Amino acid sequence: MPPCFMTLADCSQYQIFPGVRIHTAAGDRMMLSVVDLEPHAVVEAHSHPHEQMGILLEGELTFTIGGETQRLTPGQMWRIPGGVEHRVVAGDQPARAIDVFHPVREDYL
Amino acid sequence: MPPCFMTLADCSQYQIFPGVRIHTAAGDRMMLSVVDLEPHAVVEAHSHPHEQMGILLEGELTFTIGGETQRLTPGQMWRIPGGVEHRVVAGDQPARAIDVFHPVREDYL
Repeated sequence: MPPCFMTLADCSQYQIFPGVRIHTAAGDRMMLSVVDLEPHAVVEAHSHPHEQMGILLEGELTFTIGGETQRLTPGQMWRIPGGVEHRVVAGDQPARAIDVFHPVREDYL
Repeated sequence: MPPCFMTLADCSQYQIFPGVRIHTAAGDRMMLSVVDLEPHAVVEAHSHPHEQMGILLEGELTFTIGGETQRLTPGQMWRIPGGVEHRVVAGDQPARAIDVFHPVREDYL
């Protein structure tokens, strides 16, 4: 993999749930994802073997990880070990977050 | 490592170069870093064995990776394989970026 610079336009794009769109960029062992949620959009409870970390940039999220729920404002972060179920509900405004995964999520290439 | 939520106040803090401050949060195999650069601050050319990816949130950066230089605006991203030299110079305004590393940077715990 060569070193490189990317814009959102270079990323892969997916709608992963209604009102939830991601732009993904793959490295060698990590994937970076820019997540845009419409108001009240829901990322249904799910899990994956990949470790996930992230940070909220805009809006509010009600985030549940492994049975613990918190309401997050911009600047707050999360870390989710592989295999732990998590669910997200956006607040009244559009929200934007960054998620990173290790290893690369082949389903988001 | 338990799943958890974090705020910037929970993070480790370092001044890694004059005018360049980071807040870091460690996962199991990744580290997330919020990077704040004062105007014209310089991250001197360096390399590390860790893979690095990132995205610019605010301000402008002149970013050099392995001999290629680009001027970046918010939303632009980078990926830097382990061992590749890189250097960053902030523009006329304060800048904020997210960097992620794999594996965890023990020097930023």
